[in-house]
Amino acid sequence: MHGEIIAIGDELVSGRTINTTSSFAARKLFDAGYSIRRITVIGDYIPVIVECINAAILRSKFLIITGGLGPTADDITNEAVSKALGLPLEENTRILEKISECEERHNITYDETFKRKLSMLPKGAEVLNPDGHAAGYLLMQDGIPLFFLPGVPNQLENHILNQVIPRLKQMLGIGKSVMQKTFKIFGLSEIEVNARLSRIESRYSGLSIGYYPNFPEVHVTVTLKGESSEETRNSCYEACSAIRDTLGLYVIAEDENTLEAVTGRLLVRNNAMVSVAESCTGGLLGQRLTDVAGSSAWFERGVTTYTNRSKEEILGVPHDMLVRHGAVSSEVATSMAEGIRRLSGTEYSLSITGIAGPDGGTPEKPVGTVFIGMATPEKTAALRFHFPGSREKVRITATETALDWLRRHLTDGSYIPGYKPA
Amino acid sequence: MHGEIIAIGDELVSGRTINTTSSFAARKLFDAGYSIRRITVIGDYIPVIVECINAAILRSKFLIITGGLGPTADDITNEAVSKALGLPLEENTRILEKISECEERHNITYDETFKRKLSMLPKGAEVLNPDGHAAGYLLMQDGIPLFFLPGVPNQLENHILNQVIPRLKQMLGIGKSVMQKTFKIFGLSEIEVNARLSRIESRYSGLSIGYYPNFPEVHVTVTLKGESSEETRNSCYEACSAIRDTLGLYVIAEDENTLEAVTGRLLVRNNAMVSVAESCTGGLLGQRLTDVAGSSAWFERGVTTYTNRSKEEILGVPHDMLVRHGAVSSEVATSMAEGIRRLSGTEYSLSITGIAGPDGGTPEKPVGTVFIGMATPEKTAALRFHFPGSREKVRITATETALDWLRRHLTDGSYIPGYKPA
Repeated sequence: MHGEIIAIGDELVSGRTINTTSSFAARKLFDAGYSIRRITVIGDYIPVIVECINAAILRSKFLIITGGLGPTADDITNEAVSKALGLPLEENTRILEKISECEERHNITYDETFKRKLSMLPKGAEVLNPDGHAAGYLLMQDGIPLFFLPGVPNQLENHILNQVIPRLKQMLGIGKSVMQKTFKIFGLSEIEVNARLSRIESRYSGLSIGYYPNFPEVHVTVTLKGESSEETRNSCYEACSAIRDTLGLYVIAEDENTLEAVTGRLLVRNNAMVSVAESCTGGLLGQRLTDVAGSSAWFERGVTTYTNRSKEEILGVPHDMLVRHGAVSSEVATSMAEGIRRLSGTEYSLSITGIAGPDGGTPEKPVGTVFIGMATPEKTAALRFHFPGSREKVRITATETALDWLRRHLTDGSYIPGYKPA
Repeated sequence: MHGEIIAIGDELVSGRTINTTSSFAARKLFDAGYSIRRITVIGDYIPVIVECINAAILRSKFLIITGGLGPTADDITNEAVSKALGLPLEENTRILEKISECEERHNITYDETFKRKLSMLPKGAEVLNPDGHAAGYLLMQDGIPLFFLPGVPNQLENHILNQVIPRLKQMLGIGKSVMQKTFKIFGLSEIEVNARLSRIESRYSGLSIGYYPNFPEVHVTVTLKGESSEETRNSCYEACSAIRDTLGLYVIAEDENTLEAVTGRLLVRNNAMVSVAESCTGGLLGQRLTDVAGSSAWFERGVTTYTNRSKEEILGVPHDMLVRHGAVSSEVATSMAEGIRRLSGTEYSLSITGIAGPDGGTPEKPVGTVFIGMATPEKTAALRFHFPGSREKVRITATETALDWLRRHLTDGSYIPGYKPA
């Protein structure tokens, strides 16, 4: 049950907008058992749109065409469809009514060109969501469903989940069963992960194992496609166990889980809360923790002490220590972690102080130098790291490492491999 | 000078990984005057790779093929290239040397299959960056350059900037001049922006104007392509002025600028600093402000007072107030803004308290209810909002609105249109 996606828009083909919508559609379809074999991204140019639609119809069981349905001059999908399939454009009264409602609500009057553009659809188009705002529609061509969907992310997402997948199930039957498992790994490079797993890969040849760097993590997926016998299903489970055994604590999360959600669950299991004190990461650590719904059960507070003064005033970092060792030091990281733990009364706390760049480095502490502190009911420790890359990468790696340290500590009391406190 | 990108990888076509690398390549090439007419995303499947490469060569002046160059079993680009172009695979000694170095550094031994996979390149391949880690290479076919690049984002980015663009300039000459201007708008929907700009669009027909929702902003681009006469250049400048005049303060930033960077510059111009007190946004506001390099000149500190206790202890929010009005209230937002301003000694401060969801809503304060406070040298005020969408969207819109309020205030003292403090 292979389909294709054609994504239309100058903003996509010029790289100004990242094509997240095609990825969303492909992922949801894959999970439902319908896979996408090709995604073609083209600009707002009728001859190319016509060519792509005609070529894709010959190869696919279904087609999803996104973008170019809007009211502006660069929206030309309907005209292109009309040419490609030889279907005249006809006025859709349902859409005209919607526009009138919209005019009233926003208190504006659209000109006639605008209205015509939105309401003239290719003959035979079935509007997918007549009560909604955007005019996605379905056209059948020689038994092949062609879904034309708005390119705006939330509108497209609604159409995929509530219209496309249910209709594909009706028309093409339920997709073939697909088993897929994702392992998220932090602390090993793609090459290192591959070297450790290569023997497992050769042992279970019926499966496909993929390796995907996903900064700062490496994701490994195990995929089992088609009608699965009990035997293949069992070897999928076995391969997953073997991967877990081989990578151990380097596996930070599986499937839709995240490092922050896993850390949160470990805190709940330990009946404990965490607080954070940040400097160079500016709130990113707290933000990641509170991305998790329900984090108020285990996240108490965070402070971003960006200046020395704030480190002294809020966290009680001694003035002398800041002068003698500098704000980016093991001593200050330790003091920050202890300060926020004392203030918040949480069992655990994390601190980050470093030089994210692009400026501010010295020969002893170049850009990328980061100290991470952790205070626990037993003791406080700080580790020194040097993270490569841009300001953004340093900040992301620093928060990932801090979370990973806490996760490892809550799991078996271990440190980040290769790092020991001074 | 049109080219194409072919991106290879099951992870892309299944939607597990978002294709950011093709967007990066397209954008950088566009800026250098070489535009991309088509991006084709396909899986790790040799017949389709062969077909796509052969079809694209016939249409394009240059080709960029990304992904599938790695050492794992799913990396099959070299084999596909060999089939598509009829070129045998030959051993590249330079790459073998690199692998030996890597083995020593990581203290692992790769098996022979692995080494062969990385080192066997199609005959005639010129390795682009022989001293680098990844083996991107160039093949010339009938005068058309085919760049094969690693799919890993930072490796691809290096290759595009340091290899592909300089070599295209040598081979195809400098790209035609392109003028493009982007306006970032917050507070108006795409339809509202379009309605306000439609008259400008029709006045300057030589330009193309595009509208792109980019949550929570709408981006408008004005593009002038090809050899530009002084006349067309002038009309581009005129159209941009007309857009600025029409949209006024709804334009939050232009081109590569961001709302947070613009706000930072306004603070510097006012010789002022800002501090923030967050609750439901968990550090996102501080993180956005400190994303800006050099933000230590105008960002003093931030606190994330996630619990009531931390609001009382750090910010001095009165216990009675929390009990009487609840943590999500105009009173508490005001008290949080005043508390952090007093603590930090900054001229300005922002506070956010709300219900990001998915749980925690009540009939009076449903999920999405957010109070934003701002304290200035003159006074403190709080505004009540209701932001639609997911937890993530509520958090993003809340921080965007807080930043926008400060930006407007620093520009002309105004509020968010349509909102007035109680």
